[in-house]
Amino acid sequence: MSPLEHINAQFLRMPPVRAMALEARAWDGDVLRLQAPLAANVNDKGCAFGGSLASVLTLAAWGLVDARLRAAGHEADVYVADSRLRYLAPLYDDLLASARIAPGEDWVAFVRCLAERGRARLALEADVRDAAGSVVATLTARFAALRPAARAT
Amino acid sequence: MSPLEHINAQFLRMPPVRAMALEARAWDGDVLRLQAPLAANVNDKGCAFGGSLASVLTLAAWGLVDARLRAAGHEADVYVADSRLRYLAPLYDDLLASARIAPGEDWVAFVRCLAERGRARLALEADVRDAAGSVVATLTARFAALRPAARAT
Repeated sequence: MSPLEHINAQFLRMPPVRAMALEARAWDGDVLRLQAPLAANVNDKGCAFGGSLASVLTLAAWGLVDARLRAAGHEADVYVADSRLRYLAPLYDDLLASARIAPGEDWVAFVRCLAERGRARLALEADVRDAAGSVVATLTARFAALRPAARAT
Repeated sequence: MSPLEHINAQFLRMPPVRAMALEARAWDGDVLRLQAPLAANVNDKGCAFGGSLASVLTLAAWGLVDARLRAAGHEADVYVADSRLRYLAPLYDDLLASARIAPGEDWVAFVRCLAERGRARLALEADVRDAAGSVVATLTARFAALRPAARAT
């Protein structure tokens, strides 16, 4: 199973994510892209529901960590620790999210820390854009990764 | 229709919120309480999905603004502008959220500003607790309210 297929399999195992019809579409090693249809994520005003934007942004960053760790041969549980969200404009298109590592962060150091200590933290950022490419919502978030063996400590 | 019934009617009009089976349960004027079953909001680890926690927290605060404005005889569209979320512990119970105005904020000034200028901003805070009453996730967020007549300006 590819890292992208693994992300989508996990999405399908989560009822609220299944209801959003969210799908991981592309991963080039550095950026993960997700898509969800507006119809499944619409609010009472006919635009994208803020909670769906928050979920898609968080899952884009979460999925990127999962994909990078799997590609590096590591198995770990990945948790969001905290996040900051900005809602910039209403979105009347499908939800297109992309996530990347935050400036100043380092995948190599993150993976090494996880290997040596069984746990590591990383900051990521993500945005949702409309069909014209304008950013409508942003997230910065910190994630924690825990190796299964480290869970009980 | 009571403010609480109005909130639930709006939840039912949003497909992703309907999928979460979220319900407004109580409102005493200052605090709004929402509940959602774990089964509809569970992640791949068997605990509450972070996106559902983000949605429930945001909707608790959003619903409180909606309820206060309706009780004061005002009709306005209420939008979340930005938020900060902290995920403190995994939750294996139903999602119980409550929202209140942030310290230093003032409902009277908020409603007066909306009446005079057609738009106003307010900070709120919300938390989710487990069945034992421990806080497992928190939100602080700023909301904007717009009177329908002010929308076109």
